[in-house]
Amino acid sequence: MDVAQVLIDGKWRTADAEGTFHAENPAKGEPLPIAFPTSRWSDCDAALTAATKAAAELRTIAPAKIATFLDAYAANIEAAADSIVAAAAEETALPVKPRLKDVELPRTTNQLRQAAAAVREESWRHATLDLEKNIRSCFAPIGPVVVFGPNNFPFAFNGVSGGDFAAAIAAGNPVIAKAHPLHPNTTRLLAEQALKAVESSGLPPATVQLIYNVSNENGLKLVSDPRVGAVGFTGSRNAGLHLKRAAEDAGKPIYLEMSSINPVIFLPGALAERSEQLAQELVDSVLAGTGQFCTSPNLVLAFETPQTEPFLAQIAKSFTERPAQPLLSAAGRKQLHQGVSALTSAGAQLVTGGDNAAGEGYRYSNTLLRATAAQFLAAPHDLQREIFGNATLAVVISTQKELESILNLLEGNLTGTIYSAKSSADDASYDDIAPLLREKVGRLLNDKMPTGVAVSPAMNHGGPYPSTSHPGSTSVGIPASITRFAKLECYDAVRPERLPAILKDTIENSTTWRSINGTWVKG
Amino acid sequence: MDVAQVLIDGKWRTADAEGTFHAENPAKGEPLPIAFPTSRWSDCDAALTAATKAAAELRTIAPAKIATFLDAYAANIEAAADSIVAAAAEETALPVKPRLKDVELPRTTNQLRQAAAAVREESWRHATLDLEKNIRSCFAPIGPVVVFGPNNFPFAFNGVSGGDFAAAIAAGNPVIAKAHPLHPNTTRLLAEQALKAVESSGLPPATVQLIYNVSNENGLKLVSDPRVGAVGFTGSRNAGLHLKRAAEDAGKPIYLEMSSINPVIFLPGALAERSEQLAQELVDSVLAGTGQFCTSPNLVLAFETPQTEPFLAQIAKSFTERPAQPLLSAAGRKQLHQGVSALTSAGAQLVTGGDNAAGEGYRYSNTLLRATAAQFLAAPHDLQREIFGNATLAVVISTQKELESILNLLEGNLTGTIYSAKSSADDASYDDIAPLLREKVGRLLNDKMPTGVAVSPAMNHGGPYPSTSHPGSTSVGIPASITRFAKLECYDAVRPERLPAILKDTIENSTTWRSINGTWVKG
Repeated sequence: MDVAQVLIDGKWRTADAEGTFHAENPAKGEPLPIAFPTSRWSDCDAALTAATKAAAELRTIAPAKIATFLDAYAANIEAAADSIVAAAAEETALPVKPRLKDVELPRTTNQLRQAAAAVREESWRHATLDLEKNIRSCFAPIGPVVVFGPNNFPFAFNGVSGGDFAAAIAAGNPVIAKAHPLHPNTTRLLAEQALKAVESSGLPPATVQLIYNVSNENGLKLVSDPRVGAVGFTGSRNAGLHLKRAAEDAGKPIYLEMSSINPVIFLPGALAERSEQLAQELVDSVLAGTGQFCTSPNLVLAFETPQTEPFLAQIAKSFTERPAQPLLSAAGRKQLHQGVSALTSAGAQLVTGGDNAAGEGYRYSNTLLRATAAQFLAAPHDLQREIFGNATLAVVISTQKELESILNLLEGNLTGTIYSAKSSADDASYDDIAPLLREKVGRLLNDKMPTGVAVSPAMNHGGPYPSTSHPGSTSVGIPASITRFAKLECYDAVRPERLPAILKDTIENSTTWRSINGTWVKG
Repeated sequence: MDVAQVLIDGKWRTADAEGTFHAENPAKGEPLPIAFPTSRWSDCDAALTAATKAAAELRTIAPAKIATFLDAYAANIEAAADSIVAAAAEETALPVKPRLKDVELPRTTNQLRQAAAAVREESWRHATLDLEKNIRSCFAPIGPVVVFGPNNFPFAFNGVSGGDFAAAIAAGNPVIAKAHPLHPNTTRLLAEQALKAVESSGLPPATVQLIYNVSNENGLKLVSDPRVGAVGFTGSRNAGLHLKRAAEDAGKPIYLEMSSINPVIFLPGALAERSEQLAQELVDSVLAGTGQFCTSPNLVLAFETPQTEPFLAQIAKSFTERPAQPLLSAAGRKQLHQGVSALTSAGAQLVTGGDNAAGEGYRYSNTLLRATAAQFLAAPHDLQREIFGNATLAVVISTQKELESILNLLEGNLTGTIYSAKSSADDASYDDIAPLLREKVGRLLNDKMPTGVAVSPAMNHGGPYPSTSHPGSTSVGIPASITRFAKLECYDAVRPERLPAILKDTIENSTTWRSINGTWVKG
């Protein structure tokens, strides 16, 4: 084929393209062979029409079929793992092992299977029965969901296989995935497996659709279309805010994950006890995925103690010694350099790195910057700029008061971490600052780097604005992520035989938790 | 006093006023004696500063104290009921009995007490523990909440005593109430009781604050201020959409209830069985509160059958016979007439009413309009205009197909009702249209008028845009209404002694439902 085909209404078809683009191999800086289309509005329109029909059909389908689809899709991905991983490695320069094959791919299939289990259990619907008043309610599908995946997780956050996808499908909605243009082929291969699973499980053909790219204008038009139920977005703050306004002006719920600098605080006792180990942990975390994680620590806060300079020196040494890995794109490297330059312009001092690195592809030297608390407090906006890549800023603090001031000036973040002494040496300091940090982050950690995001019912991969668009919701963790893509449906005095199965007095599904007259009851 | 004082930081103080206004007695069309201030920004600023401090203090206070406040406030309202009801009757022209004293006031205190019970039980926090991964999360206060109450419920939706207020307080947030300018004195009297309860229960003084009025510009500034956690609004679509954009552009969650025409469908079998009784029910519902209910039936859909003309004639007769009650304001009457005129301009035919009515105050004749389905389908936008008052539009339908087309063209509504035969005569028709109506409404009713909104955990007083701003949330019903004003806080590997009480392995509160490793456990 000359140009890759889009997936609309169950068929791979030639796009109505206003142009084409090629992904690159960022490890080599070379364009890849397949041309992908930038779709005109007619492709979006066709996908929306098909999704509307699919949404109505999905409402009448047994949940078990949706679960079957999710499980089958997970199995299909595993069966095609080698080619999918190879494509992702080629498009992202992320290592095949362990990252893509042994970590991200199993995480993705695990997430799809957790979603399948949630669909079977049906507890996510939060069925609530007031038997005395005969009022009943539960969550139900919100309508077609448009999902924009980010550049940094080609599987686990991909619009056609990641967390938003799994959540939207589990809620019973069709998904229109917009591929990230840095890994269109990976997305295409995933969508092939999705379509096979759609067919084998008997879901409506338009349950999963894929468009590779659209103009900014059509992106805004897409998220605000009357046929859309909701939107999921993971990506840059700039793109996110434009989509946010368009969707919200049209009354469409949009869930965005946009940016985070993930402050990590080292209290004096922790450094006194184990500074070498902590430096190692930090280096591993900052350089994981070449720093291109939403939860990568961009801001290190450490008190001035006898251990602090050796601690920073060890980090700098490791940064210098470890080879810089390729970044996802030339644009990403350019933005990283702009970010580092912006930090130095705002008063930060470059300790190591700060320029392109040798080697094939788009590499940037592992970069450590430092600043004093006074400098940070003089330019708090500029010095908490997100730098997406293998760089971090260490701020050295003299007084508890300074740390408090810094925390009070932080914007919303996904995560915040405090390392403290195993002894009680840091307890007073911890008690003082933890409430301040708590207010600014979705997930508070102790003695552990934030870069792992477990798929747990208790996870919050979310946080105060502008890290996300709503501090009450999470994009990772089932069932909480599912209800984002649901509407609340109440039945008031509706006759028993007309109630949905999940709201009848007795329920066939023995696994479902329901709240009946204020008491949670299973089955 | 010359001008009523605002309540800021626990003190009644002279407002920084840019002007004053008087409420009116709408039963007489006469201004009331007390002057109320329109605050300049400095009052908002002072309230926001005090609320920020109160929010931090509230986070450290035992939930029992918040519950004590809510109960004490309910008791205080009851003790002062006579003067509060008298003030409300004077400002709204709503009947003292049964409406204000026997229905709305008890409903309001009941709601405050339900909120108190929810605070004590703590199940609303949705504590979720993954013990294996040592990840835990729960809902926590979102920060100061600004509440705008509507004109039509001086107690139950008042910014300083209604559903949003109770929910925001129960979540642990201070509230800045913006009074509705049609009932400022009622709001002042309620706030006096709230302040007494704040003092007696030992909450921070700024837990409840009151401003009577601000310019549109300062309203937009208020909802988008960085110190705000979230906003609750019940009122007109026009004002709501302006506040929505301002709040959302600043990344502030805003929950709006804006408009609804609450379609009521009478299937042929229902009219054949009991058309006289149904006409009576409809008349009672349309005229309740002089039609000034969010859930008032503005749109009646009935098939053309032998019973239909007598049914409509009976409604028209009742409308003509029953005296027109005063509306809330001169402006409301003007808007009602504009709405009726807009409907006739769009093709509807006036059956009865359609002009100002005799009697003291702002009365408008009980108004019935009718149109054919073909007329509705020719002007679906104009003919589903909300008419806030004692008027309704009946659309007579010839075919099932027409009804389907109408339902597909409806905007989002709070409620939708279907009356069908007690026999199975209408079952096929019901099964056909219920899914279409279900998509357009938050609450689906059978054989019951939508104007009662029970405070039940299973209630959904919400619906698809533009009836509200998010179809997944409800402003009535506890605990669901509370979590709107909460953020999700996750604790990842946080040391046991540092966890909030509700997330520890064992919990003292024996009433709290928590989800532990996927199982709901009490206490």
